Amino acid sequence: MKLYSMPSSGNSYKVRLLMALLGRECQIVDVEDSSVALAEARAEGRLPFGKAPVLELDDGRLLPESNAILMWLGEGSALVPCDAFTRAEMLAWMFWEQNQHEGVVAVRGALQFYPARRALATPERLAELLERGHALLQIMEDRLARHDWLVGESLTLADLTLYAYTHTAGSRGGFEMQRFPGVNRWLGRIAALPGYKGLDG
Amino acid sequence: MKLYSMPSSGNSYKVRLLMALLGRECQIVDVEDSSVALAEARAEGRLPFGKAPVLELDDGRLLPESNAILMWLGEGSALVPCDAFTRAEMLAWMFWEQNQHEGVVAVRGALQFYPARRALATPERLAELLERGHALLQIMEDRLARHDWLVGESLTLADLTLYAYTHTAGSRGGFEMQRFPGVNRWLGRIAALPGYKGLDG
Ligand SMILES: N[C@@H](CCC(=O)N[C@@H](CS)C(=O)NCC(=O)O)C(=O)O
Ligand SMILES: N[C@@H](CCC(=O)N[C@@H](CS)C(=O)NCC(=O)O)C(=O)O
Repeated sequence: MKLYSMPSSGNSYKVRLLMALLGRECQIVDVEDSSVALAEARAEGRLPFGKAPVLELDDGRLLPESNAILMWLGEGSALVPCDAFTRAEMLAWMFWEQNQHEGVVAVRGALQFYPARRALATPERLAELLERGHALLQIMEDRLARHDWLVGESLTLADLTLYAYTHTAGSRGGFEMQRFPGVNRWLGRIAALPGYKGLDG
Repeated sequence: MKLYSMPSSGNSYKVRLLMALLGRECQIVDVEDSSVALAEARAEGRLPFGKAPVLELDDGRLLPESNAILMWLGEGSALVPCDAFTRAEMLAWMFWEQNQHEGVVAVRGALQFYPARRALATPERLAELLERGHALLQIMEDRLARHDWLVGESLTLADLTLYAYTHTAGSRGGFEMQRFPGVNRWLGRIAALPGYKGLDG
């Protein structure tokens, strides 16, 4: 099994974090943003939707999309609830992450982190993303102020999905994380899990 | 069972289409964009993430996110593949739809369809969305030029998910659909399914 993974990206980190928590090994092919390796993987048809991460099985089958890879790798583990409704709630957070959270929380981080994007980081755009991001983080706070995990009573894939860009929302994104004490406790809970690995680890 | 559904929106339509195909009934609560009904549903806490669609079970439990609702309703039907890898491929298209396709194909349609958004439809923005949308539709074309369905050999939830905004990509979005013959054949295949219901149907 091989993972085409962008070292600096939360979407790729999600998959590396799940593998670490499950104690699974896999060959990592680094495809950093704007790198030759990324262009090569794309030219060789290894990235079905043109983006990383992608999981390549030993028989050559390719699976794109971070959250779909989590579902495939997590299948049968304790991180995927057995109860069908709880599983649907987990997926709701995962779709919300891709549709709402990533396009705001991750994007504000990327605009300030990747030198090539700084030109797009106008004050108006940063201000708009700040306000929208705080509203999204508040949705997580509403849940995490009263519960340890996003879904049910234990860690699920939804927590890993949302951890990826939330844990750098302060450092990269400039969001005011002190407004969200429940989120901060949850971040700490994840970082303390046995097998945990950081973004750079 | 009750569905909070926005009549004009593809995300809500997905769920209505699946119900029609499965022959399932459900009370529909119309919450049109900018309507009082939408504001009320939100104020009463019926929309966990603030948006439609939301499915309310008879015991009051709420499930947001169109694609998560599809997974919950489709569970155990022929539209969810039994094979775990094929199921993961289906989810990959569904996450891609929320992360890439919807934010471009649906957004270009919405900018021109909803009067309140027309002010945001600058020529630059429309041109950028046109180019990005054509690239995304080409990803679907690459698959559908050689296959009847997005995943495996039969209809899955991925087809319904992507049908919702692709079938109005020409009429609302102004995309040049004649460039994508495989996509057009696939649109026709879905519209011919027994039980099929259109967006306004
Ligand atoms: N929805 C995809 C998003 C993947 C994505 O946006 N990948 C970015 C890095 S975060 C990428 O490959 N960027 C390089 C490029 O587009 O050239 C997922 O969750 O895997
Ligand atoms: N990711 C969500 C998106 C839902 C969504 O964006 N709903 C829009 C209509 S398409 C909405 O509720 N808009 C009303 C509003 O935000 O006030 C899903 O797939 O269900």
